[in-house]
Amino acid sequence: MLRSGNVFAGVRPDREAEAFATLAERPGAVVERIVSTGQASPAGFWYDQDWTEWVVVLAGEARLAIAGEAALRTLRPGDWLELPEHVRHRVEWTLADPPTVWLAVHWKGGRAEPA
Amino acid sequence: MLRSGNVFAGVRPDREAEAFATLAERPGAVVERIVSTGQASPAGFWYDQDWTEWVVVLAGEARLAIAGEAALRTLRPGDWLELPEHVRHRVEWTLADPPTVWLAVHWKGGRAEPA
Repeated sequence: MLRSGNVFAGVRPDREAEAFATLAERPGAVVERIVSTGQASPAGFWYDQDWTEWVVVLAGEARLAIAGEAALRTLRPGDWLELPEHVRHRVEWTLADPPTVWLAVHWKGGRAEPA
Repeated sequence: MLRSGNVFAGVRPDREAEAFATLAERPGAVVERIVSTGQASPAGFWYDQDWTEWVVVLAGEARLAIAGEAALRTLRPGDWLELPEHVRHRVEWTLADPPTVWLAVHWKGGRAEPA
């Protein structure tokens, strides 16, 4: 039985927390869905990752801050961004309704036999 | 300068060939955009890959045949499918207008410094 699904399944605007789900993982990379409903990174928090991440927004809207960039980046449906390792970034704002649906590919970890 | 773009950029229904573009690559995995405008796999041709592929349709519609499955699988926007290595498959049909936009993650290859 092949694993399958829909990236918009179960997306609701009334969740209190961001929802993270692993859609696929194999050694070398993990594909994750993130549903944001208005959340932002905590004040003063910056992601500083040891791996490259590629993100695309499929619904909703998000504003990202990148360390060293004066302006925020706005991501609307279809917009993608590559975040090389140690490019510090934070989520300043996300649209709650409709929820903001992201796909992220993380070049890290991954198991040979996903659950 | 971070690499960025939009997965729907330059999508047109009048292209004669499928269009493949590498959006991100790092050792271990490659993220690719595919735009299909009515193409299907050649008659009798089956993909038989040495690596796992994860695909999602973001626009349009596609019908896939999986070896050993009686029914075709229809993928509509948001539908994703994991294709483990050596699961033979072929594209039976794609919607041309609007074009069918896929993202594919291939767990293979990848360069440290993408062009």
